Order: sequence, then structure tokens, then C-alpha cells
Amino acid sequence: MRKCLYRMIAAVLLAALLALAGCAQAGKDKKLKEASPPEDTVFQVSTINALLQGLYDGEMTCGELKKHGDLGIGTFDGLDGEMIMVDGSVLQVKADGKVLPAPDGEKTPFAAVTFFRSDQAQQVKEVADYSQLQRLLDGLIANRNMFYAIRIDGTFSYVKTRSVPEQAKPYPPLVEVTKNQPVFEMRNVRGTVAGFYCPPYVEGFNVPGYHLHFVTEDHQQGGHLLECSLQEGEIQMDETREFYLMLPAGSDFAMADLTTDRAEELNEVENSISGGKRIE
Amino acid sequence: MRKCLYRMIAAVLLAALLALAGCAQAGKDKKLKEASPPEDTVFQVSTINALLQGLYDGEMTCGELKKHGDLGIGTFDGLDGEMIMVDGSVLQVKADGKVLPAPDGEKTPFAAVTFFRSDQAQQVKEVADYSQLQRLLDGLIANRNMFYAIRIDGTFSYVKTRSVPEQAKPYPPLVEVTKNQPVFEMRNVRGTVAGFYCPPYVEGFNVPGYHLHFVTEDHQQGGHLLECSLQEGEIQMDETREFYLMLPAGSDFAMADLTTDRAEELNEVENSISGGKRIE
Repeated sequence: MRKCLYRMIAAVLLAALLALAGCAQAGKDKKLKEASPPEDTVFQVSTINALLQGLYDGEMTCGELKKHGDLGIGTFDGLDGEMIMVDGSVLQVKADGKVLPAPDGEKTPFAAVTFFRSDQAQQVKEVADYSQLQRLLDGLIANRNMFYAIRIDGTFSYVKTRSVPEQAKPYPPLVEVTKNQPVFEMRNVRGTVAGFYCPPYVEGFNVPGYHLHFVTEDHQQGGHLLECSLQEGEIQMDETREFYLMLPAGSDFAMADLTTDRAEELNEVENSISGGKRIE
Repeated sequence: MRKCLYRMIAAVLLAALLALAGCAQAGKDKKLKEASPPEDTVFQVSTINALLQGLYDGEMTCGELKKHGDLGIGTFDGLDGEMIMVDGSVLQVKADGKVLPAPDGEKTPFAAVTFFRSDQAQQVKEVADYSQLQRLLDGLIANRNMFYAIRIDGTFSYVKTRSVPEQAKPYPPLVEVTKNQPVFEMRNVRGTVAGFYCPPYVEGFNVPGYHLHFVTEDHQQGGHLLECSLQEGEIQMDETREFYLMLPAGSDFAMADLTTDRAEELNEVENSISGGKRIE
């Protein structure tokens, strides 16, 4: 009879264990589901005009940001370098040109990311400069009123990038910082361009048109893309019809004057190919 | 021995049943979680500038819209009246002034909704006109760079609203339609004002400042709020730091020129208190 009791207990324990295992699995699936938003969403932290005004305090950790995408661009707490996210790894291009993997605890004051799922791909050869590259991208954009995530992998005969040095408070406006931006030139490097095309009506909270960052295949150099010529490579695009904006909770954002038109400032900050220090 | 075997089987079955029950519960929770997006999110379908240009084709069903909020404003397929969503019911204020519950299958070309959870409430008395009401609302907005959902329940000594008549293709621009907008006047009615304050940088895709609709308590009259005086009531506000934009997939949106500044057009459309027909 005791033997039978043991068997009973063993059976109940076994069944209970199986049950727990089953629920644990269900729990895991649930967690995954909640962690990942719709894949066709551009997720953005703060607004570009807030950044232009010097709101450089980190808002969201890179660990949290990764839950919203695996490809994107941005910057870091205190404007400590350019961010490029590729294949789910967040890379920090510091002002001295060094590229480091950003710790999950590091925060970003501004970033835009998405889960990159290529809708279309095109092989390209001998792209003379950035403006020709943009014309090629223009040709791939079927709907200029949508968001597109862009990824270009290839061999670049020339790349010019910039980064930004970490700032101390009181933070100067971004246009002041970029006047002395360190500029980097690379020749005959394999690497990846990542970023976005945004529609015209994003003016005021993101960059209308193209905003692209670059990192070498060996993750040693990179930055905000200023100029490039492409020997050969593949352009991939991901058309995205959903946009998710998360605003900073802090008082700096509450106090910021977001009424004034900063289109010219933005253009100077994004596209000025001149730099303070030149580092080869 | 056989008795013992039965006991064993019974024990296993019991344990298994408990396991199934547990998992079923987990599954249910999971489903609930997925169904409802973050509560502090303003969810918007299409952009206001697309609507200004006459993109009136329905994009999302009201049934789907309800999954993203329980309070909000918008319009309907073919610009067939003003939408006000209160307590999760979508109401359609037709051009003849009649208010109907919108069927879940009815589509909207433009709407903004949120799950309204009041952050602050204030009792008000003797509010002379809409501009005084707006000054009261200004006083409750701690952060002009955030989104606020607004709800006002009260007794209105006077309300002036408008609606819009259903349009046929080719759709005229909204500013043409509102030139002949039917205008409604109500006196000494209990009702609810619902809508949003949007920050300045939404220009181009939503309405900067206040955009409010009205419906009477008996759901018999309502529309886009043009003027009002409030005898007594309660203002409730819900500060919202997340914004979710879903863009139309159709070719009309792809073809729309969203580059031109339509601020003046928008102001005329939103605030012109003159109307074609006046219906009391």
C-alpha cells in the first residue's frame, strides 16, 4: 500500500511538473509578444527640434530601445557620439572616431529605430557621390508620404562622416556643437549605411528626407553620413506605415520652445560637410 | 492493486486538469494584453493635411478604431459627418444634424482617439464663450509640448457646432466643403465636449492647439465645436506622452502633395464660425 502511495505522489509530481513546464513556455511566448511592437513601425524617442535646442539628457536606455527595433540611428546621453543600430546591436561612434558597443544601460535623448524587414533590394555599382546615391534611393521610394528604413551594405571607395563630442551643462544648441564637429574620412572600406527617409510632414519632430549613419564592417569607424562614393553594394528598403512617438517626461522638454521653425538650423546640422577637426 | 492504479490515474487526471485550467487563464490574460495598446497613447489614422486635400475614403473601421481608444474625434468615409467617440461609443453627427451610433463596419479616413484616463479635473461655472474656455484649458496644460485628451461634461447655455455633408468623387478640398457647412445652435443643453490639445510641432499631420467636438447627453445633437458658453461643468484632462500614427496604404495618400503649408486653410476649416445653412 505504501509503495502505491509513493507511485501516486510520483505521478502527481510528474503531472504538476509537466503543467509548470507548459505554463512557463506559455509565459515566455507571452513575454516575447509584449516585448515586440508591430514590425512595420518606426519608433522614435523625443523630437529633432528638442535635440536642436540642446535637450541632450538621456531619455530611454539602449536596452529598452532594442525592444522597439533592430536598425536605426540616434545619439547618446549628453550628445556623446552618433548612434547606429544594425542587426540589433547599438554602436556608439565617439567624437574621437572610435566605435564602441553601447551598454544596455546607456541612455539616448533622441533615436529612431525599426524592426528592419526588407521590402525591396537593389544591387548598385559605381555610385559617384551622396547626391547620386540619394537619386537612386528616390527611385526606390514608391510613396514619398510614407516612412522608409534604409540599409546599404557595400564597398565604399570613399566615406565622409562626422560625430559630436559629449557636452556639459548648460547644453549649447546642436548647431553650435556641429560647427566644431570632428569629421572622419575613410577609403576603400566595407560597411553599412543605416537610417531613414521621412515624409515632408515630419518637419518639427524628425528630419524630412534622408538621415543616414555609417559604420564599417569591422565596427572600427563610422558616424553621421556626410559624403560617400560606393564601388558596389546592395540597397535594401523597408516601407513603414506606422509611426510611434514617445515624448520625454522631463521638465526640460516641457519648457522647450517647439513653436519656432528650425528648418534652416536642421539643414545646417544635418548636411554641413565642413568640420572643425579632420581625422583620417 | 487495481484500486491503487485507479487512484494513480485519478491523481494524474486531476493534476492535468489543474494544469490546463492554469494555462487557459494565462492564455486569456495574454489575449487581453495584446488587444489593448498602452493607455497613454494618442492613436491617429492618416494626417490632417491629407484630409484637407480631400482624401475622404475610409481607411479603418470604427470597430478597429475602438481597439485603440474610448474617446476621440474624427470623420467618416466620404466625409459623411463629424465623429465624436465618448465612453467607447462612436457617434456620427450627420449633415442634417441627426446623431447616429456609427456601425462597427463604418470606416474613417481621419480620426484621433485615446483610452481616456483623467489626470486632473476642475469644476467650472459661467464660462462666457469658447475663448474663455480655451484660456481655462490653457491653465490646466502643464506641458504645451505634450498631447492632452480633453473631456468636458456640463450644462451649456449655448453651443454652436457644424457638421459636413457626405461628398462624392472627385472629392473637393475640405476648405471648399466647409464654406457651405451646416451650422447648428443649441441652448440650455447638457452634453459632452471631447477632443485634444496637440503640441505646435504636429502642424502638417494634426491640428496644433484645440480640436473639440460636442454631443448632447441624449445623443440627439452635436458636431464640430465652433462656439459655446458653459453654465456649469467639469473639465477633465488626460496628459498623453505617446503618439501613434497609422498612415493610409492607398494610392491617393501616396499621390497627395503633403509638402505645402496649409496652416491658413486649416485655420479656416477648423475655426470658421460662419456657415451656409443655419439649423436651430
